[in-house]
Amino acid sequence: MKVAFQGERGAFSEAAAFKILGNDISPIPCHDFKTMFTMVETGKAKFAVVPIENSLAGSVHANFDLLIKHTLSIVGETHLRIEHHLIGNPGSTLKKIKKVYSHPVALAQCIHFLDLHPEIEVISFYDTAGSVKEIRTSGKVSEAAIAGASAAKIYKGKILARSIEDHKNNYTRFLLVSNSKNGKNVKLKGSGKSKTSIIFNLKNQSGALFKALGVFASRDIDLTKIESRPIQGRPWEYSFYVDILGQVGAAPVDKALKNLEECADNVRVLGSYIAV
Amino acid sequence: MKVAFQGERGAFSEAAAFKILGNDISPIPCHDFKTMFTMVETGKAKFAVVPIENSLAGSVHANFDLLIKHTLSIVGETHLRIEHHLIGNPGSTLKKIKKVYSHPVALAQCIHFLDLHPEIEVISFYDTAGSVKEIRTSGKVSEAAIAGASAAKIYKGKILARSIEDHKNNYTRFLLVSNSKNGKNVKLKGSGKSKTSIIFNLKNQSGALFKALGVFASRDIDLTKIESRPIQGRPWEYSFYVDILGQVGAAPVDKALKNLEECADNVRVLGSYIAV
Repeated sequence: MKVAFQGERGAFSEAAAFKILGNDISPIPCHDFKTMFTMVETGKAKFAVVPIENSLAGSVHANFDLLIKHTLSIVGETHLRIEHHLIGNPGSTLKKIKKVYSHPVALAQCIHFLDLHPEIEVISFYDTAGSVKEIRTSGKVSEAAIAGASAAKIYKGKILARSIEDHKNNYTRFLLVSNSKNGKNVKLKGSGKSKTSIIFNLKNQSGALFKALGVFASRDIDLTKIESRPIQGRPWEYSFYVDILGQVGAAPVDKALKNLEECADNVRVLGSYIAV
Repeated sequence: MKVAFQGERGAFSEAAAFKILGNDISPIPCHDFKTMFTMVETGKAKFAVVPIENSLAGSVHANFDLLIKHTLSIVGETHLRIEHHLIGNPGSTLKKIKKVYSHPVALAQCIHFLDLHPEIEVISFYDTAGSVKEIRTSGKVSEAAIAGASAAKIYKGKILARSIEDHKNNYTRFLLVSNSKNGKNVKLKGSGKSKTSIIFNLKNQSGALFKALGVFASRDIDLTKIESRPIQGRPWEYSFYVDILGQVGAAPVDKALKNLEECADNVRVLGSYIAV
Protein backbone atom coordinates (compact mmCIF):
# COMPACT_ATOMS: atom_id res chain seq x y z
CA MET A 1 0.00 0.00 0.00
CA LYS A 2 1.67 3.19 -1.23
CA VAL A 3 1.47 6.19 1.10
CA ALA A 4 2.82 9.57 -0.02
CA PHE A 5 4.39 11.97 2.48
CA GLN A 6 6.39 15.19 2.27
CA GLY A 7 10.05 14.98 3.22
CA GLU A 8 12.70 12.29 3.32
CA ARG A 9 12.49 8.83 4.95
CA GLY A 10 12.44 9.33 8.73
CA ALA A 11 10.27 12.48 8.59
CA PHE A 12 7.57 13.05 11.23
CA SER A 13 4.96 12.63 8.47
CA GLU A 14 6.27 9.13 7.79
CA ALA A 15 5.99 8.29 11.51
CA ALA A 16 2.37 9.54 11.36
CA ALA A 17 1.71 7.22 8.38
CA PHE A 18 2.97 4.20 10.39
CA LYS A 19 0.86 5.27 13.38
CA ILE A 20 -2.36 5.45 11.34
CA LEU A 21 -1.87 2.55 8.91
CA GLY A 22 0.56 0.21 10.66
CA ASN A 23 4.04 -0.87 9.56
CA ASP A 24 2.95 -2.84 6.48
CA ILE A 25 2.97 0.12 4.07
CA SER A 26 5.30 1.52 1.38
CA PRO A 27 6.02 5.17 2.26
CA ILE A 28 6.74 7.36 -0.80
CA PRO A 29 8.85 10.47 -0.02
CA CYS A 30 7.69 13.60 -1.93
CA HIS A 31 9.66 16.80 -2.36
CA ASP A 32 6.67 19.10 -1.70
CA PHE A 33 3.03 19.06 -0.59
CA LYS A 34 1.63 19.64 -4.10
CA THR A 35 3.41 16.54 -5.47
CA MET A 36 1.94 14.51 -2.62
CA PHE A 37 -1.64 15.62 -3.44
CA THR A 38 -1.12 14.90 -7.16
CA MET A 39 0.24 11.40 -6.43
CA VAL A 40 -3.01 10.54 -4.62
CA GLU A 41 -5.27 12.25 -7.15
CA THR A 42 -3.74 10.28 -10.03
CA GLY A 43 -3.80 7.00 -8.09
CA LYS A 44 0.01 6.65 -7.90
CA ALA A 45 -0.37 6.48 -4.13
CA LYS A 46 -3.41 5.22 -2.24
CA PHE A 47 -3.06 7.72 0.61
CA ALA A 48 -1.18 10.83 1.60
CA VAL A 49 -0.38 11.95 5.14
CA VAL A 50 -0.91 15.71 5.45
CA PRO A 51 0.45 17.78 8.38
CA ILE A 52 -2.34 20.29 9.00
CA GLU A 53 -1.58 21.99 12.31
CA ASN A 54 1.15 22.29 14.92
CA SER A 55 0.28 23.24 18.47
CA LEU A 56 3.06 25.86 18.60
CA ALA A 57 3.38 27.11 15.02
CA GLY A 58 -0.32 26.93 14.03
CA SER A 59 -2.01 25.83 10.82
CA VAL A 60 -0.08 24.63 7.77
CA HIS A 61 -1.93 27.02 5.46
CA ALA A 62 -0.48 25.60 2.24
CA ASN A 63 -2.27 22.33 2.99
CA PHE A 64 -5.62 24.01 3.66
CA ASP A 65 -5.28 25.60 0.21
CA LEU A 66 -4.47 22.22 -1.37
CA LEU A 67 -7.48 20.58 0.34
CA ILE A 68 -9.68 23.37 -1.11
CA LYS A 69 -8.12 23.11 -4.60
CA HIS A 70 -8.08 19.31 -4.95
CA THR A 71 -11.01 16.92 -4.59
CA LEU A 72 -9.51 14.42 -2.15
CA SER A 73 -11.34 13.01 0.87
CA ILE A 74 -10.17 12.98 4.46
CA VAL A 75 -10.40 9.42 5.80
CA GLY A 76 -8.44 9.58 9.05
CA GLU A 77 -6.55 11.70 11.53
CA THR A 78 -3.78 11.36 14.10
CA HIS A 79 -1.40 13.48 16.09
CA LEU A 80 2.21 13.02 17.14
CA ARG A 81 4.29 14.48 19.92
CA ILE A 82 7.12 16.33 18.16
CA GLU A 83 10.45 15.82 19.91
CA HIS A 84 13.56 17.34 18.34
CA HIS A 85 17.08 16.00 18.85
CA LEU A 86 20.47 17.32 17.85
CA ILE A 87 21.85 14.57 15.59
CA GLY A 88 25.47 14.32 14.50
CA ASN A 89 27.89 11.87 12.95
CA PRO A 90 29.34 8.93 14.93
CA GLY A 91 32.40 10.15 16.85
CA SER A 92 31.01 13.66 17.25
CA THR A 93 29.97 15.42 20.48
CA LEU A 94 27.95 18.56 21.17
CA LYS A 95 31.19 20.48 21.84
CA LYS A 96 32.51 19.75 18.32
CA ILE A 97 29.43 21.15 16.50
CA LYS A 98 29.95 24.36 14.51
CA LYS A 99 26.98 24.15 12.08
CA VAL A 100 23.41 22.90 12.44
CA TYR A 101 20.91 22.22 9.62
CA SER A 102 17.12 21.81 9.83
CA HIS A 103 13.74 22.93 8.51
CA PRO A 104 12.97 26.54 9.57
CA VAL A 105 9.86 25.45 11.54
CA ALA A 106 11.95 22.96 13.54
CA LEU A 107 14.67 25.59 14.11
CA ALA A 108 11.98 28.02 15.35
CA GLN A 109 10.92 25.42 17.94
CA CYS A 110 14.47 25.13 19.36
CA ILE A 111 15.33 28.81 19.84
CA HIS A 112 16.24 28.46 23.54
CA PHE A 113 18.77 25.69 22.82
CA LEU A 114 20.28 27.60 19.89
CA ASP A 115 20.54 30.79 22.00
CA LEU A 116 22.52 28.82 24.59
CA HIS A 117 24.96 27.81 21.82
CA PRO A 118 25.87 31.00 19.93
CA GLU A 119 29.00 29.25 18.60
CA ILE A 120 26.78 27.08 16.34
CA GLU A 121 25.88 28.55 12.95
CA VAL A 122 22.23 27.86 12.03
CA ILE A 123 21.35 26.91 8.42
CA SER A 124 17.81 26.46 7.00
CA PHE A 125 17.15 23.25 5.08
CA TYR A 126 14.06 21.93 3.22
CA ASP A 127 13.38 18.98 5.55
CA THR A 128 14.29 17.78 9.06
CA ALA A 129 15.07 14.16 8.10
CA GLY A 130 16.75 15.39 4.90
CA SER A 131 19.13 17.45 7.01
CA VAL A 132 20.23 14.30 8.88
CA LYS A 133 20.76 12.53 5.54
CA GLU A 134 22.84 15.53 4.41
CA ILE A 135 25.19 15.66 7.42
CA ARG A 136 25.61 11.85 7.33
CA THR A 137 26.70 12.14 3.68
CA SER A 138 29.21 14.89 4.51
CA GLY A 139 30.45 12.85 7.49
CA LYS A 140 31.86 15.96 9.21
CA VAL A 141 31.99 15.80 13.03
CA SER A 142 31.47 19.60 13.16
CA GLU A 143 28.03 19.37 11.52
CA ALA A 144 24.70 18.36 13.04
CA ALA A 145 21.00 18.32 12.15
CA ILE A 146 17.81 18.86 14.17
CA ALA A 147 15.21 16.13 13.57
CA GLY A 148 13.23 13.33 15.20
CA ALA A 149 14.46 10.01 16.54
CA SER A 150 13.33 8.08 13.40
CA ALA A 151 15.67 10.12 11.23
CA ALA A 152 18.61 9.38 13.59
CA LYS A 153 17.79 5.67 13.36
CA ILE A 154 17.34 5.48 9.57
CA TYR A 155 20.53 7.38 8.73
CA LYS A 156 22.51 5.92 11.67
CA GLY A 157 23.19 9.33 13.22
CA LYS A 158 24.27 9.87 16.82
CA ILE A 159 21.96 11.81 19.15
CA LEU A 160 24.15 14.52 20.72
CA ALA A 161 21.41 16.33 22.68
CA ARG A 162 17.89 15.06 23.41
CA SER A 163 14.52 16.91 23.45
CA ILE A 164 15.91 20.33 22.64
CA GLU A 165 12.51 21.85 21.71
CA ASP A 166 11.39 24.95 23.64
CA HIS A 167 8.02 23.52 24.72
CA LYS A 168 7.23 19.90 25.57
CA ASN A 169 3.60 20.58 24.57
CA ASN A 170 4.57 20.32 20.91
CA TYR A 171 2.16 18.27 18.80
CA THR A 172 1.43 18.05 15.09
CA ARG A 173 -1.93 16.91 13.76
CA PHE A 174 -1.96 14.93 10.49
CA LEU A 175 -4.83 14.06 8.13
CA LEU A 176 -4.97 10.91 6.04
CA VAL A 177 -6.38 11.69 2.58
CA SER A 178 -7.31 9.51 -0.40
CA ASN A 179 -9.07 9.99 -3.71
CA SER A 180 -12.80 9.27 -3.87
CA LYS A 181 -12.25 5.89 -5.57
CA ASN A 182 -9.74 4.61 -3.01
CA GLY A 183 -11.35 6.33 -0.03
CA LYS A 184 -14.67 4.49 -0.14
CA ASN A 185 -13.77 1.29 1.65
CA VAL A 186 -11.27 2.59 4.16
CA LYS A 187 -11.96 1.37 7.68
CA LEU A 188 -9.43 2.48 10.26
CA LYS A 189 -9.31 1.19 13.81
CA GLY A 190 -9.60 4.51 15.57
CA SER A 191 -10.51 5.03 19.19
CA GLY A 192 -11.22 8.76 19.02
CA LYS A 193 -14.45 10.64 18.46
CA SER A 194 -15.74 10.90 14.90
CA LYS A 195 -15.15 14.19 13.16
CA THR A 196 -16.37 15.82 9.96
CA SER A 197 -14.41 18.42 7.97
CA ILE A 198 -16.29 20.97 5.88
CA ILE A 199 -15.32 23.88 3.65
CA PHE A 200 -17.60 26.69 2.49
CA ASN A 201 -17.46 30.24 1.14
CA LEU A 202 -19.09 33.21 2.82
CA LYS A 203 -20.13 36.45 1.19
CA ASN A 204 -18.91 39.66 2.80
CA GLN A 205 -22.30 40.16 4.50
CA SER A 206 -23.30 41.21 7.96
CA GLY A 207 -23.48 38.29 10.39
CA ALA A 208 -22.58 35.71 7.72
CA LEU A 209 -20.12 33.74 9.88
CA PHE A 210 -22.38 33.94 12.95
CA LYS A 211 -25.27 32.46 10.95
CA ALA A 212 -23.06 29.72 9.50
CA LEU A 213 -21.75 28.70 12.94
CA GLY A 214 -25.30 28.85 14.28
CA VAL A 215 -26.32 25.79 12.23
CA PHE A 216 -23.91 23.77 14.41
CA ALA A 217 -24.32 25.58 17.75
CA SER A 218 -28.12 25.34 17.63
CA ARG A 219 -27.80 21.55 17.34
CA ASP A 220 -25.13 21.27 20.09
CA ILE A 221 -22.54 20.18 17.54
CA ASP A 222 -19.01 21.02 18.75
CA LEU A 223 -16.65 22.99 16.53
CA THR A 224 -13.02 21.94 17.13
CA LYS A 225 -11.24 24.02 14.48
CA ILE A 226 -11.91 26.99 12.23
CA GLU A 227 -9.57 28.42 9.62
CA SER A 228 -10.14 31.07 6.96
CA ARG A 229 -8.33 31.33 3.63
CA PRO A 230 -8.58 34.09 1.02
CA ILE A 231 -10.63 33.42 -2.14
CA GLN A 232 -8.37 34.08 -5.16
CA GLY A 233 -9.39 37.16 -7.15
CA ARG A 234 -12.05 38.24 -4.60
CA PRO A 235 -10.20 40.49 -2.13
CA TRP A 236 -11.33 40.21 1.52
CA GLU A 237 -13.72 37.32 0.86
CA TYR A 238 -12.89 34.00 2.49
CA SER A 239 -13.27 30.25 2.34
CA PHE A 240 -13.80 28.74 5.77
CA TYR A 241 -12.62 25.31 6.87
CA VAL A 242 -14.27 23.84 9.97
CA ASP A 243 -13.96 20.57 11.88
CA ILE A 244 -17.03 19.46 13.83
CA LEU A 245 -17.60 16.48 16.13
CA GLY A 246 -20.03 13.95 14.62
CA GLN A 247 -20.36 12.16 11.32
CA VAL A 248 -22.25 12.44 8.07
CA GLY A 249 -25.20 10.04 8.21
CA ALA A 250 -26.07 11.00 11.80
CA ALA A 251 -29.23 13.13 11.94
CA PRO A 252 -27.96 16.36 13.57
CA VAL A 253 -24.93 16.61 11.26
CA ASP A 254 -26.98 15.94 8.12
CA LYS A 255 -29.56 18.54 9.14
CA ALA A 256 -26.86 21.08 9.99
CA LEU A 257 -25.22 20.62 6.58
CA LYS A 258 -28.58 21.11 4.79
CA ASN A 259 -29.08 24.24 6.87
CA LEU A 260 -25.54 25.45 6.08
CA GLU A 261 -26.30 25.40 2.34
CA GLU A 262 -28.93 28.09 2.95
CA CYS A 263 -26.39 30.56 4.34
CA ALA A 264 -23.08 29.62 2.67
CA ASP A 265 -21.84 28.95 -0.88
CA ASN A 266 -19.97 25.92 -2.23
CA VAL A 267 -20.46 23.79 0.86
CA ARG A 268 -18.26 20.69 0.52
CA VAL A 269 -17.78 17.86 2.99
CA LEU A 270 -14.14 16.76 2.93
CA GLY A 271 -14.87 13.64 4.95
CA SER A 272 -16.10 12.00 8.15
CA TYR A 273 -13.41 10.05 10.00
CA ILE A 274 -12.11 8.84 13.33
CA ALA A 275 -8.91 9.86 15.11
CA VAL A 276 -6.28 7.11 15.46
CA MET B 1 8.94 61.37 12.35
CA LYS B 2 10.58 57.95 12.39
CA VAL B 3 8.55 55.11 10.87
CA ALA B 4 9.87 51.53 11.03
CA PHE B 5 9.13 49.06 8.23
CA GLN B 6 10.38 45.61 7.29
CA GLY B 7 12.59 45.38 4.21
CA GLU B 8 14.88 47.70 2.30
CA ARG B 9 14.12 51.23 1.02
CA GLY B 10 11.59 50.93 -1.80
CA ALA B 11 9.63 48.08 -0.18
CA PHE B 12 5.83 47.98 -0.45
CA SER B 13 5.66 48.60 3.32
CA GLU B 14 7.52 51.88 2.82
CA ALA B 15 5.05 52.92 0.11
CA ALA B 16 2.24 52.13 2.59
CA ALA B 17 3.94 54.38 5.18
CA PHE B 18 3.99 57.29 2.70
CA LYS B 19 0.34 56.65 1.80
CA ILE B 20 -0.81 56.80 5.44
CA LEU B 21 1.49 59.49 6.85
CA GLY B 22 2.51 61.59 3.84
CA ASN B 23 5.99 62.16 2.42
CA ASP B 24 7.38 64.11 5.37
CA ILE B 25 8.57 61.06 7.35
CA SER B 26 11.87 59.26 8.00
CA PRO B 27 11.37 55.59 7.05
CA ILE B 28 13.60 53.19 9.02
CA PRO B 29 14.30 49.87 7.23
CA CYS B 30 14.25 46.83 9.57
CA HIS B 31 15.62 43.39 8.82
CA ASP B 32 12.64 41.53 10.32
CA PHE B 33 9.17 42.08 11.81
CA LYS B 34 10.29 41.52 15.40
CA THR B 35 12.91 44.30 15.18
CA MET B 36 10.22 46.63 13.82
CA PHE B 37 7.91 45.95 16.80
CA THR B 38 10.77 46.43 19.28
CA MET B 39 11.77 49.76 17.69
CA VAL B 40 8.27 51.12 18.34
CA GLU B 41 7.96 49.60 21.81
CA THR B 42 11.22 51.22 22.94
CA GLY B 43 10.34 54.56 21.32
CA LYS B 44 13.16 54.43 18.74
CA ALA B 45 10.47 54.81 16.08
CA LYS B 46 7.10 56.55 16.52
CA PHE B 47 5.24 54.15 14.23
CA ALA B 48 5.63 50.86 12.41
CA VAL B 49 3.82 49.81 9.25
CA VAL B 50 2.75 46.19 9.53
CA PRO B 51 1.65 44.09 6.52
CA ILE B 52 -1.18 41.98 7.94
CA GLU B 53 -2.95 40.35 5.00
CA ASN B 54 -2.58 39.82 1.26
CA SER B 55 -5.65 39.15 -0.86
CA LEU B 56 -3.95 36.20 -2.62
CA ALA B 57 -1.58 34.76 -0.01
CA GLY B 58 -3.72 35.36 3.10
CA SER B 59 -2.80 36.54 6.58
CA VAL B 60 0.76 37.33 7.63
CA HIS B 61 0.54 35.09 10.71
CA ALA B 62 3.88 36.17 12.17
CA ASN B 63 2.47 39.68 12.59
CA PHE B 64 -0.72 38.48 14.30
CA ASP B 65 1.55 36.69 16.79
CA LEU B 66 3.59 39.86 17.32
CA LEU B 67 0.43 41.95 17.88
CA ILE B 68 -0.65 39.41 20.51
CA LYS B 69 2.78 39.30 22.18
CA HIS B 70 3.53 43.04 22.25
CA THR B 71 1.38 45.81 23.73
CA LEU B 72 1.28 48.22 20.79
CA SER B 73 -1.87 49.98 19.59
CA ILE B 74 -3.28 50.02 16.07
CA VAL B 75 -3.87 53.64 15.04
CA GLY B 76 -4.47 53.38 11.28
CA GLU B 77 -4.91 51.14 8.27
CA THR B 78 -4.42 51.24 4.52
CA HIS B 79 -4.15 48.92 1.57
CA LEU B 80 -2.01 48.96 -1.55
CA ARG B 81 -2.42 47.37 -4.95
CA ILE B 82 0.64 45.10 -5.32
CA GLU B 83 2.11 45.22 -8.81
CA HIS B 84 5.28 43.27 -9.52
CA HIS B 85 7.80 44.16 -12.23
CA LEU B 86 10.86 42.36 -13.54
CA ILE B 87 13.69 44.81 -12.83
CA GLY B 88 17.17 44.54 -14.32
CA ASN B 89 20.31 46.58 -14.79
CA PRO B 90 20.52 49.40 -17.38
CA GLY B 91 21.47 47.88 -20.75
CA SER B 92 19.70 44.59 -20.01
CA THR B 93 16.64 43.13 -21.73
CA LEU B 94 14.25 40.32 -20.82
CA LYS B 95 16.06 38.01 -23.28
CA LYS B 96 19.38 38.41 -21.45
CA ILE B 97 18.04 37.35 -18.04
CA LYS B 98 19.28 34.00 -16.66
CA LYS B 99 18.64 34.50 -12.92
CA VAL B 100 15.86 36.22 -10.99
CA TYR B 101 15.82 37.08 -7.26
CA SER B 102 12.87 37.98 -5.04
CA HIS B 103 10.99 37.28 -1.81
CA PRO B 104 9.29 33.84 -1.95
CA VAL B 105 5.80 35.39 -1.54
CA ALA B 106 6.42 37.68 -4.53
CA LEU B 107 7.79 34.75 -6.57
CA ALA B 108 4.66 32.75 -5.69
CA GLN B 109 2.52 35.58 -7.11
CA CYS B 110 4.35 35.48 -10.49
CA ILE B 111 4.23 31.74 -11.23
CA HIS B 112 2.61 32.13 -14.66
CA PHE B 113 5.34 34.52 -15.88
CA LEU B 114 8.12 32.31 -14.48
CA ASP B 115 6.57 29.20 -16.11
CA LEU B 116 6.68 31.00 -19.48
CA HIS B 117 10.42 31.57 -18.95
CA PRO B 118 11.90 28.22 -17.90
CA GLU B 119 15.35 29.49 -18.95
CA ILE B 120 15.38 31.82 -15.94
CA GLU B 121 16.67 30.33 -12.68
CA VAL B 122 14.58 31.45 -9.68
CA ILE B 123 16.32 32.34 -6.40
CA SER B 124 14.60 33.18 -3.07
CA PHE B 125 15.72 36.36 -1.33
CA TYR B 126 14.76 37.99 1.99
CA ASP B 127 13.12 41.10 0.49
CA THR B 128 11.72 42.34 -2.84
CA ALA B 129 13.38 45.77 -2.78
CA GLY B 130 16.53 44.20 -1.33
CA SER B 131 16.75 41.94 -4.37
CA VAL B 132 16.78 45.00 -6.66
CA LYS B 133 19.55 46.53 -4.51
CA GLU B 134 21.46 43.25 -4.83
CA ILE B 135 21.34 42.95 -8.65
CA ARG B 136 22.17 46.67 -9.04
CA THR B 137 25.29 46.07 -6.90
CA SER B 138 26.32 43.05 -8.98
CA GLY B 139 25.59 45.04 -12.19
CA LYS B 140 25.19 41.85 -14.24
CA VAL B 141 22.86 42.16 -17.27
CA SER B 142 21.92 38.48 -16.85
CA GLU B 143 20.38 39.08 -13.40
CA ALA B 144 16.99 40.57 -12.50
CA ALA B 145 14.76 41.06 -9.46
CA ILE B 146 11.00 41.03 -8.95
CA ALA B 147 9.74 44.04 -6.98
CA GLY B 148 7.54 47.14 -7.10
CA ALA B 149 8.06 50.35 -9.07
CA SER B 150 9.44 52.27 -6.04
CA ALA B 151 12.35 49.84 -5.76
CA ALA B 152 13.16 50.29 -9.48
CA LYS B 153 13.16 54.06 -8.96
CA ILE B 154 15.27 54.15 -5.78
CA TYR B 155 17.99 51.81 -7.08
CA LYS B 156 17.79 53.12 -10.67
CA GLY B 157 16.89 49.73 -12.12
CA LYS B 158 15.33 49.20 -15.55
CA ILE B 159 11.85 47.69 -15.76
CA LEU B 160 12.18 44.80 -18.23
CA ALA B 161 8.62 43.44 -17.91
CA ARG B 162 5.64 45.17 -16.28
CA SER B 163 2.83 43.78 -14.07
CA ILE B 164 3.96 40.19 -14.17
CA GLU B 165 1.79 39.09 -11.21
CA ASP B 166 -0.69 36.26 -11.83
CA HIS B 167 -3.75 38.15 -10.58
CA LYS B 168 -4.45 41.87 -10.89
CA ASN B 169 -6.66 41.62 -7.79
CA ASN B 170 -3.56 41.60 -5.62
CA TYR B 171 -3.79 43.84 -2.54
CA THR B 172 -1.94 43.99 0.75
CA ARG B 173 -3.49 45.47 3.86
CA PHE B 174 -1.17 47.32 6.30
CA LEU B 175 -1.73 48.42 9.90
CA LEU B 176 -0.08 51.47 11.45
CA VAL B 177 0.96 50.73 15.04
CA SER B 178 2.44 52.87 17.81
CA ASN B 179 3.16 52.48 21.50
CA SER B 180 0.53 53.64 23.97
CA LYS B 181 2.43 56.85 24.77
CA ASN B 182 2.85 57.91 21.14
CA GLY B 183 -0.49 56.54 19.95
CA LYS B 184 -2.71 58.78 22.08
CA ASN B 185 -2.75 61.92 19.99
CA VAL B 186 -2.61 60.45 16.51
CA LYS B 187 -5.25 61.89 14.20
CA LEU B 188 -5.08 60.59 10.66
CA LYS B 189 -7.12 61.99 7.80
CA GLY B 190 -8.88 58.80 6.81
CA SER B 191 -11.96 58.56 4.63
CA GLY B 192 -12.88 54.95 5.39
CA LYS B 193 -15.20 53.50 7.99
CA SER B 194 -13.93 53.25 11.53
CA LYS B 195 -12.78 49.83 12.66
CA THR B 196 -11.85 48.23 15.96
CA SER B 197 -9.42 45.31 16.34
CA ILE B 198 -9.83 42.94 19.27
CA ILE B 199 -8.03 39.82 20.50
CA PHE B 200 -9.36 37.27 22.97
CA ASN B 201 -8.83 33.68 24.08
CA LEU B 202 -11.51 31.01 23.99
CA LYS B 203 -11.67 27.86 26.04
CA ASN B 204 -12.17 24.62 24.18
CA GLN B 205 -15.89 24.61 25.07
CA SER B 206 -19.02 23.84 23.11
CA GLY B 207 -20.34 26.87 21.22
CA ALA B 208 -17.62 29.19 22.57
CA LEU B 209 -16.90 30.94 19.26
CA PHE B 210 -20.60 31.16 18.35
CA LYS B 211 -21.31 32.89 21.67
CA ALA B 212 -18.37 35.27 21.24
CA LEU B 213 -19.46 36.28 17.72
CA GLY B 214 -23.03 36.64 18.99
CA VAL B 215 -22.09 39.68 21.06
CA PHE B 216 -21.41 41.50 17.77
CA ALA B 217 -24.10 39.92 15.56
CA SER B 218 -26.86 40.61 18.09
CA ARG B 219 -25.95 44.32 17.90
CA ASP B 220 -25.68 44.39 14.08
CA ILE B 221 -21.94 45.03 14.33
CA ASP B 222 -20.15 43.81 11.17
CA LEU B 223 -17.19 41.47 11.44
CA THR B 224 -14.70 42.06 8.61
CA LYS B 225 -11.91 39.66 9.59
CA ILE B 226 -11.34 36.70 11.89
CA GLU B 227 -8.09 34.87 12.45
CA SER B 228 -7.14 32.19 14.97
CA ARG B 229 -3.65 31.54 16.39
CA PRO B 230 -2.53 28.73 18.68
CA ILE B 231 -1.96 29.50 22.36
CA GLN B 232 1.60 28.43 23.27
CA GLY B 233 1.70 25.42 25.58
CA ARG B 234 -2.08 24.78 25.41
CA PRO B 235 -2.53 22.43 22.41
CA TRP B 236 -5.71 23.02 20.33
CA GLU B 237 -6.72 26.16 22.22
CA TYR B 238 -6.72 29.42 20.30
CA SER B 239 -6.45 33.18 20.48
CA PHE B 240 -8.85 34.92 18.12
CA TYR B 241 -8.22 38.22 16.37
CA VAL B 242 -11.29 40.01 14.98
CA ASP B 243 -11.86 43.30 13.17
CA ILE B 244 -15.30 44.88 13.59
CA LEU B 245 -16.83 48.01 12.07
CA GLY B 246 -17.38 50.75 14.66
CA GLN B 247 -15.29 52.43 17.32
CA VAL B 248 -14.67 52.24 21.03
CA GLY B 249 -16.70 54.99 22.71
CA ALA B 250 -19.78 54.31 20.58
CA ALA B 251 -22.52 52.59 22.59
CA PRO B 252 -23.01 49.32 20.66
CA VAL B 253 -19.26 48.57 20.49
CA ASP B 254 -18.71 49.35 24.19
CA LYS B 255 -21.64 47.14 25.17
CA ALA B 256 -20.46 44.33 22.90
CA LEU B 257 -16.98 44.43 24.47
CA LYS B 258 -18.43 44.28 27.98
CA ASN B 259 -20.55 41.33 26.87
CA LEU B 260 -17.51 39.66 25.26
CA GLU B 261 -15.68 39.62 28.60
CA GLU B 262 -18.40 37.32 29.95
CA CYS B 263 -17.69 34.62 27.36
CA ALA B 264 -13.99 35.06 26.49
CA ASP B 265 -10.69 35.39 28.37
CA ASN B 266 -8.02 38.09 28.07
CA VAL B 267 -10.12 40.43 25.93
CA ARG B 268 -7.83 43.20 24.63
CA VAL B 269 -8.72 46.07 22.31
CA LEU B 270 -5.77 46.70 19.97
CA GLY B 271 -7.24 49.98 18.74
CA SER B 272 -10.01 51.89 17.01
CA TYR B 273 -8.90 53.58 13.77
CA ILE B 274 -9.91 54.75 10.33
CA ALA B 275 -8.74 53.42 6.96
CA VAL B 276 -6.63 55.82 4.86
